Amino acid sequence: MTSETKLTVRYQETDQMGIVHHSVYPIWFECGRTDLIKHAGLAYSHLENLGIGLPLIGMECKFLYPAHYEDEILVKSGVINLTPVRITFCYEIFKKGYTKAIVSGQTEHVWANDKLKPVNMKKYRPDIYKLMETYFVEDVNHEEK
Amino acid sequence: MTSETKLTVRYQETDQMGIVHHSVYPIWFECGRTDLIKHAGLAYSHLENLGIGLPLIGMECKFLYPAHYEDEILVKSGVINLTPVRITFCYEIFKKGYTKAIVSGQTEHVWANDKLKPVNMKKYRPDIYKLMETYFVEDVNHEEK
Amino acid sequence: MTSETKLTVRYQETDQMGIVHHSVYPIWFECGRTDLIKHAGLAYSHLENLGIGLPLIGMECKFLYPAHYEDEILVKSGVINLTPVRITFCYEIFKKGYTKAIVSGQTEHVWANDKLKPVNMKKYRPDIYKLMETYFVEDVNHEEK
Amino acid sequence: MTSETKLTVRYQETDQMGIVHHSVYPIWFECGRTDLIKHAGLAYSHLENLGIGLPLIGMECKFLYPAHYEDEILVKSGVINLTPVRITFCYEIFKKGYTKAIVSGQTEHVWANDKLKPVNMKKYRPDIYKLMETYFVEDVNHEEK
Repeated sequence: MTSETKLTVRYQETDQMGIVHHSVYPIWFECGRTDLIKHAGLAYSHLENLGIGLPLIGMECKFLYPAHYEDEILVKSGVINLTPVRITFCYEIFKKGYTKAIVSGQTEHVWANDKLKPVNMKKYRPDIYKLMETYFVEDVNHEEK
Repeated sequence: MTSETKLTVRYQETDQMGIVHHSVYPIWFECGRTDLIKHAGLAYSHLENLGIGLPLIGMECKFLYPAHYEDEILVKSGVINLTPVRITFCYEIFKKGYTKAIVSGQTEHVWANDKLKPVNMKKYRPDIYKLMETYFVEDVNHEEK
Repeated sequence: MTSETKLTVRYQETDQMGIVHHSVYPIWFECGRTDLIKHAGLAYSHLENLGIGLPLIGMECKFLYPAHYEDEILVKSGVINLTPVRITFCYEIFKKGYTKAIVSGQTEHVWANDKLKPVNMKKYRPDIYKLMETYFVEDVNHEEK
Repeated sequence: MTSETKLTVRYQETDQMGIVHHSVYPIWFECGRTDLIKHAGLAYSHLENLGIGLPLIGMECKFLYPAHYEDEILVKSGVINLTPVRITFCYEIFKKGYTKAIVSGQTEHVWANDKLKPVNMKKYRPDIYKLMETYFVEDVNHEEK
C-alpha cells in the first residue's frame, strides 16, 4: 500500500534555471511521509506528542525530469525497510498526466524518543510498528505494474 | 549604531524571474537581527535559554532593486522603536558597490516569555532593555548621511 | 470576490519556536495570488508567457496568531488596489475551524514586461485589467460580515 | 584540493525539533559547490552566461549529528568523480570546534547547455574540465588525515 499526496508547484520553489530547485524534493518527500503516517490513522504531530521522533540519518534522490511552476504533482510514499530501530520510506514523484516518475528517493530514519535517543519501536509501541508494516512495499515502481 | 551582516546570494534563493525571491528578505532581516543581538553581547539562542522570545507581530518591506545570484549583500540593522513590551527593528539591504539600499524593511516584535506570553522587558531584564537602546536609530537612512 | 486556497502546514515550515516561521507567509500569499489569477481564467505561468510579470515593490504582514505543523490553512486573496500601472493584492490566512484570521497582509506589484520594465496594463491588456477588477474588494475583512 | 565555505545557522533553517531541517543541507552543499567553482577562478553565474549548466541527477546525504541555531558551519567541497559528461561533487559539513563531520553527501550533475541538453565538457571547454580536475579528491575524509 502506498499513500498519495497532491501538491502544486509554488513560484518560490523555482530557481533561476526555471525549474523546481532540488532542495524542494526532500520537503515534498516529507509531505508524503506526513500523509502516510496520517493515512495510517496516526498523525506525525501525534507521534511527537507521544514523545516519538523520526530523525533522518540518510537520504537519496534521483532526479530524472524537471518540474515547473504550477505543475500538479503527485507524491507516492511507501515503506521500503522496517526494523525495530529504523524505518526507510521511499517516494516517487509524478507530474500529472505522466506515467514515469520525475524524481524518486528514499529517507532512512531512526525511531527515537523526544531526546533524539533511539528506541526499539517493536517493543515500545508494537501497534505503531505493525501499522507501518502495512505500508511496506518491495519497490514503489513494481507496485505500479 | 547599526549592526552589519554580510551574505552572498545563494542559488536556491533565486526564482524563475532570475532574481532573489521576495520571501528571502525576511530571512536576511532575521540574520541581521541575530547579528545585532550578538553584537550587543547577547546571542539570540542565549535569549531563548533565558526564556525570552521575540515573536513577530508585524513586518513591512519595500523592494526597490532586485538582487541576483552571487551578489554580495550587506544588511544594516538597527532599532527604530523600543517600549517595555515591544521592539521594532529596521533593516536596509545593500548590494556591494552600491550606495542605495535595494530593500528596506521593519519587523515589529513583542518581548515574550517561553510560552509566548508578553513580558515587560524594562522590569524583567532592564540590562537587556538598556542594551537594545544603544542600537536605537532615528532612521537607518539618516545615519548614512 | 475573493479566491480561496487550501494548504496544510509542512514540517519544514516550522521553526524551533514550534510555530510556522514568518517567512513562510509571503510564500502562502503567493500561492493565494497564483490561485486568484488562475481562478480568473488566466494562469501566472501564462502571464509570464505573455511577457507580463508582477514584480513586488512592497509587502506588509500582521501576525496575530501562530500556525502549527499539520494545521489546515485557508488563504483568502483579493485585490485591494488597482491602477493601470500597479496592483495590490490582500490576503487573510485562517486556520480551519477558526473565524478570525491568524495573519493578514498585502503585496504591492507593478505591471511589468519580461525585462521588468513597467507597462500600462489598462492599455497593454485591457482584458486582463478588467478581469482583475472583478476581484476588487474594499477590504477582505468587510466582505466576511 | 578542497574548497571551504563558512556559514552560520539561520533561525529560519531550524525546525520544531530544534535542529537544522534536513532540506537545508542540499542548500549548503550548493553554497559549497558555488565557492569551489569560484575558487577555481570561474563563477557559477559566469558558467551560466557561457551557456553551461550543471543540473542535478542524483544526491546522497548522511546525517550523523544535528546542527543548531547560530552554530558556525564549515562546508568542505571537492570533486569525487569527473567524466566528460558528468561531475560528482562531495561535501563534508563540520561544526566549529569539532573534527568529525556532522553531515556528508554527494551531488551528481550532468554538464549541460542552456537548454539542459548534455554536452561533452572535455571537448566543449577543455579548460574548465581541467580546472575541475584540480579539485579531484579520492575521498574528502582521507584528505583530512
